[in-house]
Amino acid sequence: MSPPSKAIVYENHGSPDSVTRVVMLPPVEVRENDVCVKMIAAPINPSDINQIEGVYPVRPPVPAVGGIEGVGQVYTVGSMVKSLSLGDFVIPSPLSSGTWQTYVVKDESMWHKIDKRCPIEYAATITVNPLSALRMLEDFVSLKSGDSVVQNGATSMVGQCIIQLARLCGIRTINIIRDRVGTDVTKEKLKALGADIVVSESQLNEKNFKSHLGNLPEPVMGFNCIGGNVASLVVKTLREGGTMVTYGAMSKKPITVSTTSFIFKDLSLRGFWLHRWMHLEKVKECRKMIDYLIGLARDGKLKYETELVPFEDFATALDKAMGKRGNHPKQVLKF
Amino acid sequence: MSPPSKAIVYENHGSPDSVTRVVMLPPVEVRENDVCVKMIAAPINPSDINQIEGVYPVRPPVPAVGGIEGVGQVYTVGSMVKSLSLGDFVIPSPLSSGTWQTYVVKDESMWHKIDKRCPIEYAATITVNPLSALRMLEDFVSLKSGDSVVQNGATSMVGQCIIQLARLCGIRTINIIRDRVGTDVTKEKLKALGADIVVSESQLNEKNFKSHLGNLPEPVMGFNCIGGNVASLVVKTLREGGTMVTYGAMSKKPITVSTTSFIFKDLSLRGFWLHRWMHLEKVKECRKMIDYLIGLARDGKLKYETELVPFEDFATALDKAMGKRGNHPKQVLKF
Repeated sequence: MSPPSKAIVYENHGSPDSVTRVVMLPPVEVRENDVCVKMIAAPINPSDINQIEGVYPVRPPVPAVGGIEGVGQVYTVGSMVKSLSLGDFVIPSPLSSGTWQTYVVKDESMWHKIDKRCPIEYAATITVNPLSALRMLEDFVSLKSGDSVVQNGATSMVGQCIIQLARLCGIRTINIIRDRVGTDVTKEKLKALGADIVVSESQLNEKNFKSHLGNLPEPVMGFNCIGGNVASLVVKTLREGGTMVTYGAMSKKPITVSTTSFIFKDLSLRGFWLHRWMHLEKVKECRKMIDYLIGLARDGKLKYETELVPFEDFATALDKAMGKRGNHPKQVLKF
Repeated sequence: MSPPSKAIVYENHGSPDSVTRVVMLPPVEVRENDVCVKMIAAPINPSDINQIEGVYPVRPPVPAVGGIEGVGQVYTVGSMVKSLSLGDFVIPSPLSSGTWQTYVVKDESMWHKIDKRCPIEYAATITVNPLSALRMLEDFVSLKSGDSVVQNGATSMVGQCIIQLARLCGIRTINIIRDRVGTDVTKEKLKALGADIVVSESQLNEKNFKSHLGNLPEPVMGFNCIGGNVASLVVKTLREGGTMVTYGAMSKKPITVSTTSFIFKDLSLRGFWLHRWMHLEKVKECRKMIDYLIGLARDGKLKYETELVPFEDFATALDKAMGKRGNHPKQVLKF
């Protein structure tokens, strides 16, 4: 049997701060192929919040434990388990629900052993954001060294990953950020990660916006996680024949594109959802890429900000993750 | 030398009814590789009008003769011409400007000999609309017999061609038409061409719009030549993973799509422009397809309405083509 597990549970869909509560779940059986993992850390992702709200296209039946990614250490193993041993560091792969708790029991095949030397805040968050960035860079357009790409929401975690992963392949990035206090600091931060051009929304709204894009080639690909007017800034920056991939909807506004952009500029608009990709029987391929990303994080070649928060302070972390207390880095629960 | 040629010429860009005039052009030299063609018929396409207005992305230098497609008969040939003989029926292929005149002289390689048995109103119009329909059905999605597609502007010439060409491959069509007087007559006309479902915009705006789509599979592909809300009707009808191709902009309104359509419904939005496709060194491939379409038209398997108008009545035909006199079939000048 597993130890009892302290978990964030919701019994109904609704606003996470009102429907979630801390519950001590009773011990569960560790069957012969099961592995019981003592969770170390797990992030609060926007999709976790949407799942609890009941507005996400996939959601586990309630009552449910929150969270879909995280990192833990093997605590006990069933009698038939061969690939994992006590003390191994593991992540759920593919993503699987119920990581916001102290002990998780799942079939051996659901866990992927990772390099212990990777800092836990990276190990806990390596799939939802960094893997999305990697897939989007590889799946839609055959990018070559020297090409450039453009993105809005460049300060987001995916945005930061795109900058760094592109850089590693010789791909240049044009990064659109909001106009707000501290723009200069943000620009410097992104440039330190490897951004070639950082440009504000208002600069791209100028008539001679191309003067802000340096001498990079016109981008062949764009990434949009905002929608509305800020998606249009990506569209207008793309070169003829370019592709924009939408993976987020921070403004909750739709995307409006002229018909001539399709007919004469030959643009393609696509979408990316990690969940779909991970369910295409790509577990093996997926784990290879996770290992690549874990290696980069271990070696300090992939960096992004997170904030480790004690599990006891879940309510505060949730508020921050929901944007109720201004801008904060990704909240990562530490068990 | 060619005979003098009576031509529709424009010396400046502007509204076609004010900038075009009839000019008698002097004889031109028929060089050894040239073929002089006595034009029989040539249509007034929307892109011809846009070219004269100066709002089309490609436009010949002015002064220019209007028109880019048509059919004619070989009148004289240069001394080195081998593939064409007096009396052959030919069309310019790829499309080439200056077909609104009685005699056209071009290099032998610019003309494609066609089957004389094809009615001239079809031969004159086989490229811009029917070839677009054929390319769009083949270039974006690998359609299989039994699949279905959805289109707005179904009564347009391209729309009518899509219905018939799809039908020949066992592909079912859902056709969106405007709500206006005579809807029932329009429905019957399109069904006579092979349309499986004909549905009005207002029917698709109903909550239970799927009840109007019969038991066809959800469409894997959509065609949009209108934009605005009517493009959204195509988008909402598509199945998960579907593709919408935009090839026209009749409403002159942009296309607005929710971010979730891209992320969760995995839709792709693309564009088609025959001009781009024809310039990809595809002359040979293109002519094969023209022959296929000419054969269908000859055999009565590809039908659409046109109105043959004497060349002298160009001004009236132009008014009709510009929509100034209500709805009329494609205007085809008869020389």
